[in-house]
Amino acid sequence: MNKIKQIPVLERVAKANEIFVNEIRENFRKNDIICFNIMGSPGCGKTTFIENTILKLKDKKKIAVIEGDLATTIDAERIRDLGVDVFQINTGAMCHLDARLIREALAKMDLSNIDLLFIENVGNLVCPSSHDLGEDYRIILASVPEGPHKPKKYPVIYKEADVVVITKADLLEHFPDFTVETLFGHAKEIKPDIITFKVALKGKEIIMDEWIQWLLNAKPNNR
Amino acid sequence: MNKIKQIPVLERVAKANEIFVNEIRENFRKNDIICFNIMGSPGCGKTTFIENTILKLKDKKKIAVIEGDLATTIDAERIRDLGVDVFQINTGAMCHLDARLIREALAKMDLSNIDLLFIENVGNLVCPSSHDLGEDYRIILASVPEGPHKPKKYPVIYKEADVVVITKADLLEHFPDFTVETLFGHAKEIKPDIITFKVALKGKEIIMDEWIQWLLNAKPNNR
Repeated sequence: MNKIKQIPVLERVAKANEIFVNEIRENFRKNDIICFNIMGSPGCGKTTFIENTILKLKDKKKIAVIEGDLATTIDAERIRDLGVDVFQINTGAMCHLDARLIREALAKMDLSNIDLLFIENVGNLVCPSSHDLGEDYRIILASVPEGPHKPKKYPVIYKEADVVVITKADLLEHFPDFTVETLFGHAKEIKPDIITFKVALKGKEIIMDEWIQWLLNAKPNNR
Repeated sequence: MNKIKQIPVLERVAKANEIFVNEIRENFRKNDIICFNIMGSPGCGKTTFIENTILKLKDKKKIAVIEGDLATTIDAERIRDLGVDVFQINTGAMCHLDARLIREALAKMDLSNIDLLFIENVGNLVCPSSHDLGEDYRIILASVPEGPHKPKKYPVIYKEADVVVITKADLLEHFPDFTVETLFGHAKEIKPDIITFKVALKGKEIIMDEWIQWLLNAKPNNR
């Protein structure tokens, strides 16, 4: 008698995600797209970071954005107002994006017209880390008001990240306990080769040149 | 022939959680404990909020704390340094606390010696909302640097909350787009009877009296 083969639910989900990821990645290579998965806490400045990057680069690169939010189109509208293609995914109660959702979004976008694709993940320092979206780079934003210990307290997401960006650096003077070196040090304890940037997008002095330079030179990266 | 009765996995988990919740709540009523589930984004100021509440009340009330973190005992050490009983739960990669974990923690604590129990949940605006811990009140912290739109963007957790507290109000002058009225307005659209407070715990003027008064008068609340 044949033995019934059982595939546990979680394994089946992981397998399906892997198939979608491979398909997404092939699509990115075929269309010369480099994709960035932007992750971070709620309110760490993900949309502002993408907006300012667009403003710097939109004459040099064709940019598109996928916005992930539980609800509302507030962030997508901000991006659309910059004249950039944006696709909104509302996850309802779901705490992260997954490859199935990204695949559905890409099917509705004109991939031949994109150089750089930014995916703004749901604001969450835990769940998005377990979900590969086919991205070339995972970028975590860590805002100054959150304090310098986030890499130690949320190590799983930092272990899987390629880049960490300190945001709201214009607020550093109001947070004497936060130093850029402390946060980068903690991040490197968890991921020694993590790439580090600091940005200030709202104060008197705008800081983002190093990030933009890196972005302009970023190569496809099949993680 | 008997029909095989199948209980789906999620239903079984929910049922087990409900049994634990009922047991926890009975234990709280028997020991005259009021329990507060403190939720909010990573870095919104949960530990600082609990610390300052302890400093105000520790001569009047017997306070204990359960700290939920993916990793480290950084927060638990801060509470312990105030001379208060604290129990650390490290969830590993898990994005929230659940009733099973709280039940295990309570089994190791001296419940006869507690008036107010604070549970600091994992920093996350999504997942903790689906997990009843047997608490009397769910309290969401919303820090000024996160912006005023969090209730609209994370409605599920606000719908289940009893209280919203704006934290880091000493930073209001640096965030001209944030007004207390806007955030409270958005929260009340989602949960009309939500109770609202504003605190400032690090600036020149400490603001927390209204919260402390409410807390001193809080009654048991079998949600």
